[in-house]
Amino acid sequence: MTNEKHAVNREQQRHQQRQQKIKQKVDEKIAKAQDERGLVIVITGNGKGKSTSGFGTVARATGHGLNAAVVQFIKGNWECGEANLLKQHGVEFCVMATGFTWETQNKAADIAAAQITWADATRLLADPDIDMVLLDELTYMISYHYLDLDDVINAINNRPHHQHVIITGRSCHRRLIEMADTVSEVQEIKHAFHSGVKAQKGLDW
Amino acid sequence: MTNEKHAVNREQQRHQQRQQKIKQKVDEKIAKAQDERGLVIVITGNGKGKSTSGFGTVARATGHGLNAAVVQFIKGNWECGEANLLKQHGVEFCVMATGFTWETQNKAADIAAAQITWADATRLLADPDIDMVLLDELTYMISYHYLDLDDVINAINNRPHHQHVIITGRSCHRRLIEMADTVSEVQEIKHAFHSGVKAQKGLDW
Repeated sequence: MTNEKHAVNREQQRHQQRQQKIKQKVDEKIAKAQDERGLVIVITGNGKGKSTSGFGTVARATGHGLNAAVVQFIKGNWECGEANLLKQHGVEFCVMATGFTWETQNKAADIAAAQITWADATRLLADPDIDMVLLDELTYMISYHYLDLDDVINAINNRPHHQHVIITGRSCHRRLIEMADTVSEVQEIKHAFHSGVKAQKGLDW
Repeated sequence: MTNEKHAVNREQQRHQQRQQKIKQKVDEKIAKAQDERGLVIVITGNGKGKSTSGFGTVARATGHGLNAAVVQFIKGNWECGEANLLKQHGVEFCVMATGFTWETQNKAADIAAAQITWADATRLLADPDIDMVLLDELTYMISYHYLDLDDVINAINNRPHHQHVIITGRSCHRRLIEMADTVSEVQEIKHAFHSGVKAQKGLDW
């Protein structure tokens, strides 16, 4: 065997030893994590990709034959690619469909619409046939005081044991973050919109 | 009209005035953002939801009838809910399918697999019939030196003008962040796995 081949073999051995150590640690962690239950997941922050991540998880669950439902606050008066696709697979969509507060310009109507949409959410959060509920843009309903925080927390706490709940939106309330199992914060590093790029079909909606 | 009703009306007027000002600013920004082209989007950081956000965007695009394709590095030797669902809608999946480096423990084989998978990516990045390419977990291929950074940058720069590219994975290389139009960093605030919760079907894979 040449010196070069020896060196390659030694490098492969060292690589294998390092990876075996990593594998041991990963396996230990996996062995410790044996709890299975419905989780509360919060995706907050000012960056792009929060709702999209929620819809990605709904697509994942649906692809495994789980029953997922989507409740959309604020958004929803325009066509959404993800809704087009997921509805074909039996995902129920409950949509507030008012658009942004600066579109409606009517606080009383916004509050009424939020509460009607929340009634759909409470129904889904009490339904043991539903495995996952995405509460898209829920955080704004709390920060605008359109929904009562205690009502929201109670409905989530009393849901079926196996049901996953995903909450998206900026500036998530501290108490929702505290009750959540997994929290990710999506930070904007840069965004094409600020460089003059239009919101595009299939990418942004 | 009672005093109370007057107060409610004044509050609604103030709300409307505030929202009209916001609407004006939003409309001005939208009017300035008229560029339409394929974007490079990077979703990086150590938090949960990067790949999921990528798959959510693919679901969105597919729901609008765009042609999306997925290239998965590292991952892919287990069943994925999102792949189950998206394949039914004609989304092409090219999967490295080796699993994590600590599973294979063989660097030469990993590099060979990465390069075969990258050949699929270059084919898709040159195909004008493809509207969106998700390069899931690509960042690791650069940080491990399994793929050449200049090759990756050239293939992305020379893609069809309308084609969107989404790159996911931790520790994205500075040069990919510089060339990207939109960059989000997903930060882990907390993760259920560290509290002993198992990775669950439909939620984590």
